[in-house]
Amino acid sequence: MRNLRFVIRYDGTGFAGWQTQPGQRTVQDVFEAAVRAITRQERVRANVSGRTDAGVHAVGQVVNLYSPTAIPADALAKAVNSQLPPDVCVRRCDDVPQSFCANKDAAGKTYRYVICDGRPHDPFLGRYAWHNRQPLDADAMSEGATGLLGRHDFRCFETDWPNRLTSVRTITRCDVRRSGEYVTLDVSADGFLYNMVRAIAGTLVQVGRGAWPPDRVREVVAARDRKLAGPTAPAHGLFKLRVDYPDPWVLPGDEPAWLFPRDPGERPA
Amino acid sequence: MRNLRFVIRYDGTGFAGWQTQPGQRTVQDVFEAAVRAITRQERVRANVSGRTDAGVHAVGQVVNLYSPTAIPADALAKAVNSQLPPDVCVRRCDDVPQSFCANKDAAGKTYRYVICDGRPHDPFLGRYAWHNRQPLDADAMSEGATGLLGRHDFRCFETDWPNRLTSVRTITRCDVRRSGEYVTLDVSADGFLYNMVRAIAGTLVQVGRGAWPPDRVREVVAARDRKLAGPTAPAHGLFKLRVDYPDPWVLPGDEPAWLFPRDPGERPA
Repeated sequence: MRNLRFVIRYDGTGFAGWQTQPGQRTVQDVFEAAVRAITRQERVRANVSGRTDAGVHAVGQVVNLYSPTAIPADALAKAVNSQLPPDVCVRRCDDVPQSFCANKDAAGKTYRYVICDGRPHDPFLGRYAWHNRQPLDADAMSEGATGLLGRHDFRCFETDWPNRLTSVRTITRCDVRRSGEYVTLDVSADGFLYNMVRAIAGTLVQVGRGAWPPDRVREVVAARDRKLAGPTAPAHGLFKLRVDYPDPWVLPGDEPAWLFPRDPGERPA
Repeated sequence: MRNLRFVIRYDGTGFAGWQTQPGQRTVQDVFEAAVRAITRQERVRANVSGRTDAGVHAVGQVVNLYSPTAIPADALAKAVNSQLPPDVCVRRCDDVPQSFCANKDAAGKTYRYVICDGRPHDPFLGRYAWHNRQPLDADAMSEGATGLLGRHDFRCFETDWPNRLTSVRTITRCDVRRSGEYVTLDVSADGFLYNMVRAIAGTLVQVGRGAWPPDRVREVVAARDRKLAGPTAPAHGLFKLRVDYPDPWVLPGDEPAWLFPRDPGERPA
């Protein structure tokens, strides 16, 4: 049996999240069915680097699965794509060592949260960004974000604590950038708690609106109390951007240009 | 009564087209209801520059309507936006002379058709582009498009001929451009026949695939027979881009950046 690693991209709008659920359309079911149709395996079981919730998108989700197929990896990616619906695709497929596990071997993950504070709302990209009526101060958000860096007990951003053994995680990067009417938040960590990025986004937006000073973010982390952080931001602004592994590998070009729209500006007729 | 001109933008995916239809969600109904809610008029009747079909998008649709409201035009645009769902917005509102009619006074209209020939398909922008599995030769399409310029009887691109008095129209611009995996077709004319741009797109794609030589486009127009042209391209790749009027007016920045995505290229991990 070969062990195959896939990089998958999907628009989460039409899915009840990654994981198989009876009576629901999930990415796992759709992807596994496409692989089955090509490899003619009776059972395909995809190990995912981490589930995504209903409505959450993925630019570079990673899974691995075992298969006896003889189809070369590149051809397999194309063949599986021919079986996938328009809202999900395989970006890459390659052979990995037998021991590789997309979940356990993940060294780091990066999420992006997209917020729009343009007026009026944008009918086209609205499904990929959280729209805020109030203008946001991205510099203040960026300052607040520095309070998240490093190794901390992040239970303040965990929806279901104490479900886990530990809520300690290490955030290695937390960048807030403005591009026209869009503010993007990129967070990299060794792992994430349930709803963690959405709670961080909800907290930083409080800072961006001027309701909280940037220092408040550091205080919220120290207090370790979910009630003191901001609200959980909606799922449709969240993208699982990439997963990194210790082995040397190159991800396919994984930042869709429209996630950083240029400012169209005013144009004379 | 004031005569008010609105520029409206919408994602056509969730609408059964512009025009009111019993039991259907249409842009006209949603827009008129929002205006009624703000102006408290019993009846609002929007004159549109031209209907769009189910699934067709608009970057700059134009309508006018009569209203006794005293709200200044800028404030009215904001107030109406507060009543509109996420997939439609007002980009601009201003007072125009009593005699202005969005339909009859239109001097020119521009549509954009977006085609993607990237592999694999793009889960995010797939709803805004016609995906072609075969790579397209945009230069050949551009050459073919020159055969459309000028004043011709375009019944070869009209779905329902002979419903109209005349099928003669003047195409002033027909530009094919490639940007990464996307090929855009911009067509400007003094008016359009039913399904005309979609039939032009279907015809030029035959050229782009290499099935037809570029000269065939000119022959199709001369033959004036719908059966000789290419298929009608799907609605979801079509955008009503702008409507121009003889009076001096400036449209708001009306080319969303994501309609010209940059090529993300390959990025090392």
